[in-house]
Amino acid sequence: MNDTPRLDAVFAHIDARSGSYVERLIAYLRNPSISAQNKGIREVCALLVEMLTGMGLQAEAVPTSGHPMVLGRYDAGPDKPTILLYGHYDVQPPEPLELWHSPPFEPEIRDGRIWARGVGDNKGQHFAQLMAIEAHLAVHGTLPCNVIFLLEGEEEVGSPNIEEFIRANRDRLRADLVVTADGPMHQSGRPTISYGVRGVASFELRARTGRRDAHSGNYGGVMPNAIWQLVHLLATMKSPEGEITIAGLADRVLPATPTEAAALARLPDDRAAYMEAIGMRALDAPADRPLFDRLMFHPTLTINGLHGGYGGPGSKTVLPAEAVAKCDIRLVEAMTVEEVFACVKAHVEAHAPEVEFVPSGGMLPSKTSMDSPWRGALVDAMIAARGEEPLEFPCMGGSLPDYVFTKILGTDAFVTPYANFDEANHAPNENMEVALFLAGIRTGAALLEEVGKRPAGGPAAEASDTATAP
Amino acid sequence: MNDTPRLDAVFAHIDARSGSYVERLIAYLRNPSISAQNKGIREVCALLVEMLTGMGLQAEAVPTSGHPMVLGRYDAGPDKPTILLYGHYDVQPPEPLELWHSPPFEPEIRDGRIWARGVGDNKGQHFAQLMAIEAHLAVHGTLPCNVIFLLEGEEEVGSPNIEEFIRANRDRLRADLVVTADGPMHQSGRPTISYGVRGVASFELRARTGRRDAHSGNYGGVMPNAIWQLVHLLATMKSPEGEITIAGLADRVLPATPTEAAALARLPDDRAAYMEAIGMRALDAPADRPLFDRLMFHPTLTINGLHGGYGGPGSKTVLPAEAVAKCDIRLVEAMTVEEVFACVKAHVEAHAPEVEFVPSGGMLPSKTSMDSPWRGALVDAMIAARGEEPLEFPCMGGSLPDYVFTKILGTDAFVTPYANFDEANHAPNENMEVALFLAGIRTGAALLEEVGKRPAGGPAAEASDTATAP
Repeated sequence: MNDTPRLDAVFAHIDARSGSYVERLIAYLRNPSISAQNKGIREVCALLVEMLTGMGLQAEAVPTSGHPMVLGRYDAGPDKPTILLYGHYDVQPPEPLELWHSPPFEPEIRDGRIWARGVGDNKGQHFAQLMAIEAHLAVHGTLPCNVIFLLEGEEEVGSPNIEEFIRANRDRLRADLVVTADGPMHQSGRPTISYGVRGVASFELRARTGRRDAHSGNYGGVMPNAIWQLVHLLATMKSPEGEITIAGLADRVLPATPTEAAALARLPDDRAAYMEAIGMRALDAPADRPLFDRLMFHPTLTINGLHGGYGGPGSKTVLPAEAVAKCDIRLVEAMTVEEVFACVKAHVEAHAPEVEFVPSGGMLPSKTSMDSPWRGALVDAMIAARGEEPLEFPCMGGSLPDYVFTKILGTDAFVTPYANFDEANHAPNENMEVALFLAGIRTGAALLEEVGKRPAGGPAAEASDTATAP
Repeated sequence: MNDTPRLDAVFAHIDARSGSYVERLIAYLRNPSISAQNKGIREVCALLVEMLTGMGLQAEAVPTSGHPMVLGRYDAGPDKPTILLYGHYDVQPPEPLELWHSPPFEPEIRDGRIWARGVGDNKGQHFAQLMAIEAHLAVHGTLPCNVIFLLEGEEEVGSPNIEEFIRANRDRLRADLVVTADGPMHQSGRPTISYGVRGVASFELRARTGRRDAHSGNYGGVMPNAIWQLVHLLATMKSPEGEITIAGLADRVLPATPTEAAALARLPDDRAAYMEAIGMRALDAPADRPLFDRLMFHPTLTINGLHGGYGGPGSKTVLPAEAVAKCDIRLVEAMTVEEVFACVKAHVEAHAPEVEFVPSGGMLPSKTSMDSPWRGALVDAMIAARGEEPLEFPCMGGSLPDYVFTKILGTDAFVTPYANFDEANHAPNENMEVALFLAGIRTGAALLEEVGKRPAGGPAAEASDTATAP
């Protein structure tokens, strides 16, 4: 299966210890680390530093304006390439608790899965990377490449301080490539590599038309209705045909490159299964847009929530004085948060100056070329660890702060998810298949091996060496 | 002031007993009668029958499919005209209780006002009518006209059974005119007469695009958004310029008659005070539509509430699978609930067949001619009781089930509010000015006297006898 006896020895080590890895993951998962509620952050941060140090890495908790970063390092030698493994140790709040079948911080194994908050997002995934390091060190006494291990404590609250941290620590974060194990794999279970993520820009639209709600008979037709103001404004922002109609917003959108277009053409269009998974009866407009094109090469304007007026049982003849819409825009290359906010602000001022536009957070998109010299290392690692070629996605629909690596550090960044498609991240009953956790350790081990085979600085001519051209 | 010594004697009787009237009203207000919560209905119904019987009226509680009607009658003689006084003994729920300055069913007098749930809407107003009857009977031993006293127990839940009751009791409800003391007076404090009410048709629009909410990154651009579906549908139902754009909906709208147009021209356009009262900075579109035209001669389409997706603090990148809009349409003559629902249904099917249209309740509009032969009796009663001419409104913005009188019984119906403009009906701290309650008793007494002066069947040639032609 694999032409490297070095890696075979590591795989054998991992297979022999699978029970112990699962036990150690379960122990790790018992520790809540909820960034939004500032619960258990310090404790888990200290635990990780101890864990990394115990494995033989230099490790420390680096303070930021928010929760600290955990930064570990292993130096294999200056002639070796350096991989930066990024993840996050914070988790989503577990609420609503009553929907969990077992308590979120008392992990259980049922039906071949581990059930716990954070198991998929992201503890089980970065713990697999850690165990891969440990296995290499146990078998060979050293690592095949230099490793920088970076775990953030604020990913679930929008990574507000990672940019500042990256700029301040530029020198010690110099790497040849960045790999993040996060998110779900493709639903077929095939390993996947994503070369990019969409960015995001969140904002609120707030309407207020009077001091208090009014009687719809006594004021109907007289007092402006806060919900109607939002409805009419929103209707100018996106057409029923699915096109965002905010001037300038999509000006910078880059179409797929020929390499990306070819990659898209190779992806299985399993829209029936995809739609069935969530109970969709129809795809969103525009009807003629291919599935992956929607997720990877177009911005979206999502109304996350709209609330105003009466929402109780029956009817109430009230005319609402106040309404709020929360929205997010997913950004694709080469859109910027700043320009997006400027376009939305100008649009609101032009169409509904009475409505208040309140920008909140944002994150740039990120894209790494599918012709990256490091592509071969990732593809070969997947084949070695999983026995099949990975699916390659030019971009993911969701967002991760990968722009700090690609746009600030200038480093190629990849996402290689280890969790099952139905991991239920951000939801009750989050879970990860035991087999996929163990496959993640193998994949992590193979990745270190394949990266270590390449020269530092990158295998410049290797892009076309791999079996499948991108 | 008043050329009828008969009425002067009644006024003197009322003035002498004002303290006792207020005490008796307070005792009445201590009894909750909340139709929506089926609380205290039977008790107040029994209390009223006892009260009416004690005053010398024939009275009974007439069962309906819902809460009973209280029906009282006084026969002054077959040659006398008959006035039907309509009101309702049920009140709105008092919640939210924490906003009340004194408990809703422990009435208090402060600042010249009585504070209690139901004092304005409608107990203080129909109790004033009752005391007017009692005063006449005390002074003269009889009434100047026949009286039918009808109190409903379900007005606050949309009068679902009044139509059935009226049709079944047509014979014993034969009257020359119907007068309802309900709603607030004009903010100037001048007595008012309304000749009509708008109808209402309530419905919900429900959108569902999947089994559960989705991640806006993983599904953004792919899964239809329930809120966007409602936004785009609603935007086709009313233009930003304020015109309802549902085909056929306004086909039956009748413009103001010359008499009504002349009445409108006489009304004070106090829009500044009207807007200030509720903190409005601008009138609703269309900008060039006169204030009273909006309230009396145009239907409205109000979104009473729209709820979907995330509404908590901060942002959440969710793509909502479910959203509901609650709406009401206020109807003007000669629109019908049935036709309005048919138009909305057809519109939804044509523009957004995926959205569910769920009609709930409805009530027809009502209009009495401003040339009614009974106009003079009302105007003269106001002048006798209040010393000034009333403001005359062709229509009210709100709704009352007056169509059962005008359209089923074929009787002219008028609304003569006794409560102050800021009565806070349907809201915490409902109140009624003591002076206006007493003025209501005087007005009720004068009304009986003026109606009694006219021949049964109506003073056919009297429309032009009054000082101010309508």
